[in-house]
Amino acid sequence: MTLETISLNRSHGGMQGVFKHQSEATGTEMTFSVFVPDHAEGAMLPVLTYLSGLTCTHANVTEKGEYRAACAQHGIMFVAPDTSPRGDDVPDDEAYDFGKGAGFYVDATQEPWATHFNMRRYVEEELPALIQAHFPADMARQGITGHSMGGHGALTISLRNPGRFRSTSAFAPIVSPLNCPWGEKALTGYIGPDQAAWRDYDACALIADGARLPDLLVDQGTADNFLEDQLKTGLLEQAVTAAGMKADIRMQAGYDHSYYFISTFMADHVAWHAARLKG
Amino acid sequence: MTLETISLNRSHGGMQGVFKHQSEATGTEMTFSVFVPDHAEGAMLPVLTYLSGLTCTHANVTEKGEYRAACAQHGIMFVAPDTSPRGDDVPDDEAYDFGKGAGFYVDATQEPWATHFNMRRYVEEELPALIQAHFPADMARQGITGHSMGGHGALTISLRNPGRFRSTSAFAPIVSPLNCPWGEKALTGYIGPDQAAWRDYDACALIADGARLPDLLVDQGTADNFLEDQLKTGLLEQAVTAAGMKADIRMQAGYDHSYYFISTFMADHVAWHAARLKG
Repeated sequence: MTLETISLNRSHGGMQGVFKHQSEATGTEMTFSVFVPDHAEGAMLPVLTYLSGLTCTHANVTEKGEYRAACAQHGIMFVAPDTSPRGDDVPDDEAYDFGKGAGFYVDATQEPWATHFNMRRYVEEELPALIQAHFPADMARQGITGHSMGGHGALTISLRNPGRFRSTSAFAPIVSPLNCPWGEKALTGYIGPDQAAWRDYDACALIADGARLPDLLVDQGTADNFLEDQLKTGLLEQAVTAAGMKADIRMQAGYDHSYYFISTFMADHVAWHAARLKG
Repeated sequence: MTLETISLNRSHGGMQGVFKHQSEATGTEMTFSVFVPDHAEGAMLPVLTYLSGLTCTHANVTEKGEYRAACAQHGIMFVAPDTSPRGDDVPDDEAYDFGKGAGFYVDATQEPWATHFNMRRYVEEELPALIQAHFPADMARQGITGHSMGGHGALTISLRNPGRFRSTSAFAPIVSPLNCPWGEKALTGYIGPDQAAWRDYDACALIADGARLPDLLVDQGTADNFLEDQLKTGLLEQAVTAAGMKADIRMQAGYDHSYYFISTFMADHVAWHAARLKG
């Protein structure tokens, strides 16, 4: 598990790094970023993993997410992986919502995707092991969040791994791939047409099937172009209400789907995670 | 003075806009960004103008500058122009440090630059008039800041216009174009070889020649690759000391020349300007 450092920049009293490594899960080189705030020597820090949305790499949130000030204040490490395998030998689709940049945090079973598109395994297993091995990370204190497709990733990964994440939040998540065009296209392509197999990758279905989180924070902009057809926050509200699951789902007036929205509420989310990751 | 709106995004409780207009000063279309924080109806807001560095457009600071939270907190409008005229009929140089993206905040006198490269007039006259005409701006309460070439712009524009800016700061500014390769190249090209004419575009020379600011804040990273050969912060320290001018020039250990540095100290600068722009 060798890591190669691409860049290290001092920022907000800590170090913002970008790293790459040969991934066993995807069979490709993978790139991710980590912000390590200033900390006492020997201290082990809680870890907040952020999963990005369609078309993004680690770079979008690293440059535009405005998380470093809050992570420095609360002493939290921030990890941002890529959204898919990359490289010339990785299959792709010309659409923005399938193939490279659109891994959907699944382990693909369909060809030609199955060889490389194993972002579930990458985020659930390989990346945490790397973080534990190379950074001062207290893996007993993990939180997870994400945006859009990455919000879907955060919700489903946390719901499938009860107890692993002390805190879960999302920005404008895709809440039910079973019920939106992005999800139908991606899961048909990666997992095949049997919708029973999709339920592992659908936050609302996972909750309906009995999975629970102790708590949940979601922010969703009311001016988000994707709200009605793709994100469908109302389905998550129905699912948590039916399950009696604690959740704070906040509709934010006038906000869209961009990093101008994410960066506005990032400090709130970091503080929310920090309150659950301390001690 | 018609403004065309390119984008408007709700962010941090205000509106981040990007606008373009036909500029009289440059004879080209010019693009700039403005963040207008939430404010009481009819309120007129103080204005902080940020001038960007070599190779940048308005977009770099708008996306990576992390100024919106602080501007929202302090009720300050944030204006970020481009660094040069743009367009197919604008002359250019293949180097990154001359021509497009490198206007150096001068009014060029040499051909082929004199027609379009009038960034001094653009920033000193045309842009403030546009801001006053189109936004709830209190032009009696202006501050100015900038990064690198834009730090040079902020310092020299403020020094040449005593009383116009209540507050002046800079991130890693070029403090003396007379004494660095970037400055020598740009001023020779835009203004010609007579160095006496350069003194209007050199913060240290302006101070030596008697210009004063009531106060000044500068942050400079010690790990900045350009510190020794181009930025030469020490020359500014000598100039303000010799002039008995109040200035807080802070060497920031381990920080480089990037937006990871700028964003770290942006909230400090906004608060510093706010303290001088209130009331």
